[in-house]
Amino acid sequence: MPESTHHHHWLLTVAYLGTNYCGWQHQKNGNAVAQELEKILRRIQGRRVVVHGASRTDAGVHAEGQRARISLPKAMDGKKLLRAFNTLLPPDIQVLALAPCAPDFHPRIRARLKTYRYQLVNGPVLSPFLTTTHHWLRRPLNRAAMDEAAALFLGRHDFSAFRAAAGSAQPPRRSITLSEWATPAPAILHYRVAGPGFMHQQVRIMAGTLLEVGMGRRTVASVAALLQGGPREAAGATAPPQGLILESIEYAHESPAGSGINSPPRAV
Amino acid sequence: MPESTHHHHWLLTVAYLGTNYCGWQHQKNGNAVAQELEKILRRIQGRRVVVHGASRTDAGVHAEGQRARISLPKAMDGKKLLRAFNTLLPPDIQVLALAPCAPDFHPRIRARLKTYRYQLVNGPVLSPFLTTTHHWLRRPLNRAAMDEAAALFLGRHDFSAFRAAAGSAQPPRRSITLSEWATPAPAILHYRVAGPGFMHQQVRIMAGTLLEVGMGRRTVASVAALLQGGPREAAGATAPPQGLILESIEYAHESPAGSGINSPPRAV
Repeated sequence: MPESTHHHHWLLTVAYLGTNYCGWQHQKNGNAVAQELEKILRRIQGRRVVVHGASRTDAGVHAEGQRARISLPKAMDGKKLLRAFNTLLPPDIQVLALAPCAPDFHPRIRARLKTYRYQLVNGPVLSPFLTTTHHWLRRPLNRAAMDEAAALFLGRHDFSAFRAAAGSAQPPRRSITLSEWATPAPAILHYRVAGPGFMHQQVRIMAGTLLEVGMGRRTVASVAALLQGGPREAAGATAPPQGLILESIEYAHESPAGSGINSPPRAV
Repeated sequence: MPESTHHHHWLLTVAYLGTNYCGWQHQKNGNAVAQELEKILRRIQGRRVVVHGASRTDAGVHAEGQRARISLPKAMDGKKLLRAFNTLLPPDIQVLALAPCAPDFHPRIRARLKTYRYQLVNGPVLSPFLTTTHHWLRRPLNRAAMDEAAALFLGRHDFSAFRAAAGSAQPPRRSITLSEWATPAPAILHYRVAGPGFMHQQVRIMAGTLLEVGMGRRTVASVAALLQGGPREAAGATAPPQGLILESIEYAHESPAGSGINSPPRAV
């Protein structure tokens, strides 16, 4: 019997601190965020339920608005399901919201827009409040050059140079609709980038390349050249995972405001 | 030889996540924040150096801008001292800034203004990003009543009902120059309160009492009555420590802007 028949389908909005996890998706070693959700589902449904996520975030990467579909054999009231998840899940993973969805709803393929935010502290000291969710660079960065290089990403380009070597089977032409730096507080930088889909580690390689522009290690022109395609080695280092946050995933059937639940204050 | 002669005096601005500490000050059991600083000073100065803090924050309470004086037997360059602290300290305690100060400078007595912020999530779900630094109340609060009660604290009053029983030797008449609620993001509430000095647990008892007003468990008028003095039992429950942040401490010789280093985005 296919999963879609006589099952109850929910689209979840999941937030997590990735610090203690090996990523969203199952790995041979370590605990994955999706596995933690599946553990709870086995407990409350009495059998294995697969969690179909929209984005396979890497080890150490965080999410404010990951999305995932589950198809439950047993009917459950939405409020009770939300409560069960959040009582049984560890505090570093919580389900922010859930809504019924179509049986064949595919959270990754149906995504209209994914927004990521890369956060860093650029100053002599890293506040204890920011360690878990920010990358740290002491030396002052050339913000004007970083702004100029970020704007080059807008539009549709060949991002071959910006994908992890392991993910090279993915189609490299990608569209970017938002790519900009902001300073939400003194010594804090946020890079926000959005598009319908990203390749493995693409956002962290884009952020890492822009940071190399800011450090004066590469020119703005060199970034323009990279968007014609090229080998992975031509782009910058992959920025560390703790600075990356999957901010939101939007679908055509929802309002573009996103969940907005419990988002920390944000000036961007 | 008194500490003040031939010593080198620094005023530190210290930030910490209180989660893993038994408070600022030495306790019989557990590790105190001041002790962590003193451990580093013994290492880099080769002898015991006492850290004189401005505020004895309780176990689990955080600080963005704790202040403390140290008097060093050996001269050290400020930049090197800052670097040594932050390399040797754990990431959940960092020295944000330091400046030379007078030999007899007393960070607690000389404080012109201390500002605390109490943070809570008021909604059905607690985001993993906020667990460490926010109290959580699911049920909707009566914000209008909380605003009205908060304004009553302004001015000079007898705060006998708002002090921990153990701290009852402190003079109970205290001045409050700021006392207000704000909503920096959806489902997030901040209570900010400022004054030249507070008694033990005063801010958490004030916050806890205002939350009881918000929950409809006590009237605004009952708070007005409490400011004539009264026993500890007459006021509300002490709000949990993880929501409290010592935001800043101001001195007459400094600009009132505070350190501002690495402060998270704040709408209040």
